[in-house]
Amino acid sequence: MGGKILYKKWQCLKKRLREIYDLESVIAVLTWDQNTHMPPGGAEARGKQLSVLGELAHQKKTAPELGELLEAVESEPPFLSYDSDQASIVRVAKRQYLEAQKVSTGFISRFYEHIAKTNQIWMEARESNDFGKVAPCLEKTLDLSREYASFFPESEHIADPLINRSDYGMKASDIQELFHQLRRQLVPFVDEITQQPASDRSCLLQAYPVQKQLDFCKEVIAKMGFDFRRGRLDLAMHPFMIGFAAGDIRITTRVKEQDLSEVLFSTIHEAGHAIYEMGINPAYEGTPLHNGISCGVHESQSRLWENIIGRSREFWSYFYPKLQARFPSQLGNVSLDDFYRAINHVERSLIRTDADELTYNLHVIIRFDLELALLEGKLQIRDLPEAWNERYKTDLGLVPPNDRDGVLQDIHWYFDFIGGVFQGYTLGNILSSQFYQAALKACPEIPEQIVHGNFVPLHAWLKENIYQHGSKYTAAEIVERATGSSLAIEPYMEYLRKKYYNLYLSR
Amino acid sequence: MGGKILYKKWQCLKKRLREIYDLESVIAVLTWDQNTHMPPGGAEARGKQLSVLGELAHQKKTAPELGELLEAVESEPPFLSYDSDQASIVRVAKRQYLEAQKVSTGFISRFYEHIAKTNQIWMEARESNDFGKVAPCLEKTLDLSREYASFFPESEHIADPLINRSDYGMKASDIQELFHQLRRQLVPFVDEITQQPASDRSCLLQAYPVQKQLDFCKEVIAKMGFDFRRGRLDLAMHPFMIGFAAGDIRITTRVKEQDLSEVLFSTIHEAGHAIYEMGINPAYEGTPLHNGISCGVHESQSRLWENIIGRSREFWSYFYPKLQARFPSQLGNVSLDDFYRAINHVERSLIRTDADELTYNLHVIIRFDLELALLEGKLQIRDLPEAWNERYKTDLGLVPPNDRDGVLQDIHWYFDFIGGVFQGYTLGNILSSQFYQAALKACPEIPEQIVHGNFVPLHAWLKENIYQHGSKYTAAEIVERATGSSLAIEPYMEYLRKKYYNLYLSR
Repeated sequence: MGGKILYKKWQCLKKRLREIYDLESVIAVLTWDQNTHMPPGGAEARGKQLSVLGELAHQKKTAPELGELLEAVESEPPFLSYDSDQASIVRVAKRQYLEAQKVSTGFISRFYEHIAKTNQIWMEARESNDFGKVAPCLEKTLDLSREYASFFPESEHIADPLINRSDYGMKASDIQELFHQLRRQLVPFVDEITQQPASDRSCLLQAYPVQKQLDFCKEVIAKMGFDFRRGRLDLAMHPFMIGFAAGDIRITTRVKEQDLSEVLFSTIHEAGHAIYEMGINPAYEGTPLHNGISCGVHESQSRLWENIIGRSREFWSYFYPKLQARFPSQLGNVSLDDFYRAINHVERSLIRTDADELTYNLHVIIRFDLELALLEGKLQIRDLPEAWNERYKTDLGLVPPNDRDGVLQDIHWYFDFIGGVFQGYTLGNILSSQFYQAALKACPEIPEQIVHGNFVPLHAWLKENIYQHGSKYTAAEIVERATGSSLAIEPYMEYLRKKYYNLYLSR
Repeated sequence: MGGKILYKKWQCLKKRLREIYDLESVIAVLTWDQNTHMPPGGAEARGKQLSVLGELAHQKKTAPELGELLEAVESEPPFLSYDSDQASIVRVAKRQYLEAQKVSTGFISRFYEHIAKTNQIWMEARESNDFGKVAPCLEKTLDLSREYASFFPESEHIADPLINRSDYGMKASDIQELFHQLRRQLVPFVDEITQQPASDRSCLLQAYPVQKQLDFCKEVIAKMGFDFRRGRLDLAMHPFMIGFAAGDIRITTRVKEQDLSEVLFSTIHEAGHAIYEMGINPAYEGTPLHNGISCGVHESQSRLWENIIGRSREFWSYFYPKLQARFPSQLGNVSLDDFYRAINHVERSLIRTDADELTYNLHVIIRFDLELALLEGKLQIRDLPEAWNERYKTDLGLVPPNDRDGVLQDIHWYFDFIGGVFQGYTLGNILSSQFYQAALKACPEIPEQIVHGNFVPLHAWLKENIYQHGSKYTAAEIVERATGSSLAIEPYMEYLRKKYYNLYLSR
């Protein structure tokens, strides 16, 4: 093929990829609106809108012309080294094309319409604390999740195709083994720590005016690197990050007037996700590379900023005086040390998103196990609340007093497939320590700079090694390139042990 | 054709119309977001998103299969009387199909992309008071407007196809004649009134906390019939109403801390539009009937609520004590009579949206004349600010001190074609009085009920005679059915004379 023809084909390919990117961005705008501003009366029509768009996007993703263009540019190897952007675009686009081909268009549109309805009913069910209201929807979600998996009959486990959607390349069996190892070390450690006198978090549980809380959070995330010209912060029932383009990446948070930690760590967490997306090479906009690579890697960034940085003494050495200045009557007499202990309070609790660093993964492992049981047919939807409560009793020693604080708490099963998302949170925790260890090795001055409010060295390392690449490399490749080794739990356990021994056992 | 086959074809047609409706709703969501929440960095990608969707919607609107289905159901007349919903859906869908067919898909996508860019640049140009910044965009908009008109070579005047988009059936020549008549009566009347001592509006120009202003407006529009479960109110630079579905109809407004009238009348105005859309027969959702029929009729509803009702003594007999209770330090010592005079202050001014009832139409007629001159090639974009300023001097005796308060003030030319929109405002003013006169004839108790805060009789008459029909009847048909006569300026001039003689000449 001549250079001119190849160039033309390449332009046609880019145009098709851009259309897919734009349609997915539009779906994201509709989703953002649905969760932040849409009045209840808009739900039914929103479902239809998402369904039409989902179908159109799927048609574009599976168009034979796209397949032909991918073949054509792929068969001209001279300029395509693995690391080149062009080769990477073709590689990732082709993988997505082959995957999309397996799923019928009718399925996608049924799924979108179902999910929009389910999401609305979940909000009502959660409000009225009535799992029964949303259970029929959830049964259909489970059927649809199984149907999705059935499009990939070559899979080892029914959950694998679902996991592939968010953590490409990971298998249910690998994750089970990893979580098993982690749990074996974590459970006795949580026991050890929770036997110590708990730290006092009452300083956080005072009345903090809502708008002032939000204003402080905006100051914090701007300093971390969140660019408000290219993003916004809104309120939503369930905090999330969503990107529409390189220049429009939004986060949501939630505020409790009587608990300052809610907005602080939700916002820092979501900002961590957003900073990742804001750092992707802007030249990738309009291609499948302009995305965080996986749930695990994405979550490693939100958790790194939320926990390793956002709950560190260095971070608050810089921000605490500013926080005190905003809330003198609440915090004027609380020392940095006491505040640091308060935000690292460990306690077995019911709500995943409120959980501390140590117990958090136990929440995730419960959900992961329940998902597998549902998908494998070993657990029925009607028995889910009971199974949930039993596992909470066994693993965390607590029984939820109602479904709102139990099985209805998280949006995920009511907004997506059942299976394939929760594992990312714990993978992210594990990776966050691996990445931070590597960053420290390269730039040992990071903590000292943070004390002075300088986040540039950390941000620069993350951008260089993770953010800029978007989806160019697989998660496994990113981990290997950035840390020199593969996914491993040791750095994470080491980090937890050091921090929490210091906090709880060296007093 | 057998009944079964016809039924099936009818279902296929409804599905296709629903898809078009949903895609247009999605475009509306993107537009709403663009004008309320989108960060500046999102503008470029938003243009691409709108362009892709505009192209897809246009493809759906011009699909040959749609034309065939319309032919098929249309050729089976037995059940299709003119007044039936089915016949009306087919009639309106066919008209839109034939119109869309004339416009090339490539044109639509170029237009959307251009407009998104122009809109963003307009905001910057307005901010920095620099017409030159947006002039090149506006030249292209003019070219595109002419190109659009050229798709309808059978038109009498270049502006007719543009006017048809919003006021179907009206012609540039008819409007010129109508505006000429109106102007002949209005100009001497404005002279007469403005020679009287102006009413004192200083009570409105005090410091009113922004949030409290918005809260009051929400109370007012809820009472008028705005349903917050099916809509929302947000802030935007330029107030507008936009509907996504029967259950999701949104308005925006703007607030000035130092001028209470800004938010009051902007909000009531937009709520008037929204109440119209909320009152359309919900069974029409997903069809081309689920839309206000024309700019003129739409504007008649916003102006009826804003002016005839919202600036009436009856309205404020009910609401003014509530307003005083919210703002005791500002209004405690201002009588209802003084407040009524303040909100009906007449003064020649520069900003259309701030103009009083009497001078308002002069602003519109200026824009309409300038549009025609631009389209006819008698005026160049580069000369537009000067032409604008000259006309303001001639017609209103004022020269804008800068372009922000001049040619950059309105969003319209920077968000749509040039031509075909402004006439609707004055048509709306004329119609508002015609409709209200008819409503009073049918229910003479309307004003007395409004004094008691009961808007039901008025709302019911409007819903019965206008709202419910959506686009089932043409504007001309609606006017004829509701008032028993065709468009006429007498009721409007009579209303203005009676009100303003009373206010200014009987003191």
